[in-house]
Amino acid sequence: MAKVNENYLKLPGSYLFSTIGKKVAAYQGANPDRKVIRLGIGDVTQPLVPAIIQAMHEAVDEMGKAETFHGYAPDLGYGFLREEIARSDYRERGCQVDADEIFVSDGAKSDCGNIQEIFSQDSRIAVCDPVYPVYVDSNVMAGRTGEYDKEREVWSNVIYMPCTAGNRFVPELPQECPDLIYLCNPNNPTGTTLTREQLKVWVDYANRTGAVILYDAAYEAYIAQKDVPHSIYEIEGARTCAVEFRSFSKNAGFTGVRLGFTVVPKDLWRDGVALHGLWARRHGTKFNGAPYIVQKAAMAVYSQEGKAQLKDQVAYYMNNARVIYEGLREAGYEVYGGVNAPYIWLRAQEGMSSWDFFDWLLEKANVVGTPGSGFGPSGEGYFRLTAFGTYESTVEAVERIRKLRRE
Amino acid sequence: MAKVNENYLKLPGSYLFSTIGKKVAAYQGANPDRKVIRLGIGDVTQPLVPAIIQAMHEAVDEMGKAETFHGYAPDLGYGFLREEIARSDYRERGCQVDADEIFVSDGAKSDCGNIQEIFSQDSRIAVCDPVYPVYVDSNVMAGRTGEYDKEREVWSNVIYMPCTAGNRFVPELPQECPDLIYLCNPNNPTGTTLTREQLKVWVDYANRTGAVILYDAAYEAYIAQKDVPHSIYEIEGARTCAVEFRSFSKNAGFTGVRLGFTVVPKDLWRDGVALHGLWARRHGTKFNGAPYIVQKAAMAVYSQEGKAQLKDQVAYYMNNARVIYEGLREAGYEVYGGVNAPYIWLRAQEGMSSWDFFDWLLEKANVVGTPGSGFGPSGEGYFRLTAFGTYESTVEAVERIRKLRRE
Repeated sequence: MAKVNENYLKLPGSYLFSTIGKKVAAYQGANPDRKVIRLGIGDVTQPLVPAIIQAMHEAVDEMGKAETFHGYAPDLGYGFLREEIARSDYRERGCQVDADEIFVSDGAKSDCGNIQEIFSQDSRIAVCDPVYPVYVDSNVMAGRTGEYDKEREVWSNVIYMPCTAGNRFVPELPQECPDLIYLCNPNNPTGTTLTREQLKVWVDYANRTGAVILYDAAYEAYIAQKDVPHSIYEIEGARTCAVEFRSFSKNAGFTGVRLGFTVVPKDLWRDGVALHGLWARRHGTKFNGAPYIVQKAAMAVYSQEGKAQLKDQVAYYMNNARVIYEGLREAGYEVYGGVNAPYIWLRAQEGMSSWDFFDWLLEKANVVGTPGSGFGPSGEGYFRLTAFGTYESTVEAVERIRKLRRE
Repeated sequence: MAKVNENYLKLPGSYLFSTIGKKVAAYQGANPDRKVIRLGIGDVTQPLVPAIIQAMHEAVDEMGKAETFHGYAPDLGYGFLREEIARSDYRERGCQVDADEIFVSDGAKSDCGNIQEIFSQDSRIAVCDPVYPVYVDSNVMAGRTGEYDKEREVWSNVIYMPCTAGNRFVPELPQECPDLIYLCNPNNPTGTTLTREQLKVWVDYANRTGAVILYDAAYEAYIAQKDVPHSIYEIEGARTCAVEFRSFSKNAGFTGVRLGFTVVPKDLWRDGVALHGLWARRHGTKFNGAPYIVQKAAMAVYSQEGKAQLKDQVAYYMNNARVIYEGLREAGYEVYGGVNAPYIWLRAQEGMSSWDFFDWLLEKANVVGTPGSGFGPSGEGYFRLTAFGTYESTVEAVERIRKLRRE
């Protein structure tokens, strides 16, 4: 008799974004004439830039001719792309990362969710609170998180590191020693960052305790300030304690194209085992390479034209971030993020919970955001807006929220 | 201190296809003038057909315009594709499978490797022997397979179901009761099949014992004989005991494009839990949808032009299969498969192990195949050749092997 993985049953019933989707659909159904503006999910809205479109057309044509057809891609990614990443994302920033330490995949979400597999069943995880839900959920599925406390919305065996206005969103080193530490920098959802100096504290801690840092740098393209590192490998000592996740979703609009990569340095060993070999084995057994066409599209991200076009695209979204940040601050809201990240994190209207504020904004301003409590207990009372809408809808959303505040 | 997943360390060091790759590279390095013909890996060689190329170009153009740009795809696949699959692959064959029971993914390898996650840690698996290595390896990684016996090349906690010429490659019901049963039909590597009647025995057995059948139908497009089912859902009772994996890799040449799907019927429950919900949660947490462009390409597989063009492509490969099958049989080899599948399974030269035969063919005929023992202990003494080469190289490979036999 087959039995199910009981850990799955421990997951709280409804996933954050599906609850939001249902609420919005219900509201829109009851009020079909209202124009709802969605600044909730972190999905991009601008089309792929011309350099990428051209590269994809060329790759499609290659796939249609016997002489240039490409079958199975190498499990770990095409050499041309791994070389380009090593050069442009790492060596040019002074980081030592070799092409064969880069694992190309169908996206950072898959890698962030799957990485826990190569660690032992009894690993203890630490997460920033609030944070991207996949880190915790994938460990729930693997049975590492203990029991769920519905009241407090926390897992008994997860170390939560609160990031609130009180500590300026910089997590403190935990009292209990974790085995795996998830860090997201710039952070989703708060849009705040760790500086090089602040990150160094974590690298030193991990090297001292033997913990491994799982470093999500999906938003690195939005970093504007000089003291915020684009990669954890800018920090001395990171090669012996950190795995890094990167994405093409936000820097190049690949949310619907699907591509990302993970760096596992060959110097990262635990239990006398190189993690590099374990991740390679996982990739080789449960993944079959990213599409040729998509890997060629990624090459255009690094071309001269691609770089110039994408710089404009990132600037477009960051201008939206500025519009939201400044608009809400002027209206009297307490706002964070938005400078090095496409997310704005704001304190909900006084006396309102995150979900109260969600309902209020949806109903009164027809603007959709994400309740901060959906990202962890310390997110309660906060709210996330994304800069990935169009400029016009962003301006209108901010104007509606400001007007509501004035009423 | 982080600790690694020790189950990974139990995996035998070298993966079958990487060992083959190294041997071929070494031979080719030492003999650069020899033209080596590769009929080893099951990778296709024919380009994507024109209908698919056109659909991809159109989808790429859509991604380049704001009005038609597509961001995150639905985790479980676009409705248009799920509807088309439900109609063309199932309802038209008289199978009851609804669109929302279809989960679109980046390929059957990923799904076959990941499906074990939704079952309990102490599940006992049964596999045909020989078989596609991913079924066993993914369970090794999850810690379900016990210890590895290097001598016999078997895992202590896996139920092997030998498929040899002795039982005409039809597995017998196991003595011990498994929780999960992997069946691949048409089989990789033997190219042999189960008829509807033979499969019914397994469906009845699973419903009687509560086991779940994990049914890999990646090669269904190659089925020529009427009594071989294209889907397990052609069998009465399958909706309460079977998950089905399908691929676009072999019917449409998508090995480097990446797309597949898995069917989890809503009637499939264990422990009072619907597996459908568990797989949806896994997809939603650790996967972020297949690319829009690729899902549009898949739609062309079902168009009038696409169907006609792909029928020719499958016929091309099946003609190769016939060339190998008949050529080797006439040369005195004992051959199997090749009628409903793109694989030919042959008995190695007398007195030779699978690897002896591999070395001999590589050296004397410069032809690369896959040693049968790489697929399981009962594969020892057998050898796999694929029909996915070009016609010209296939004819030459067969001629070389025949000549060698005559010498």
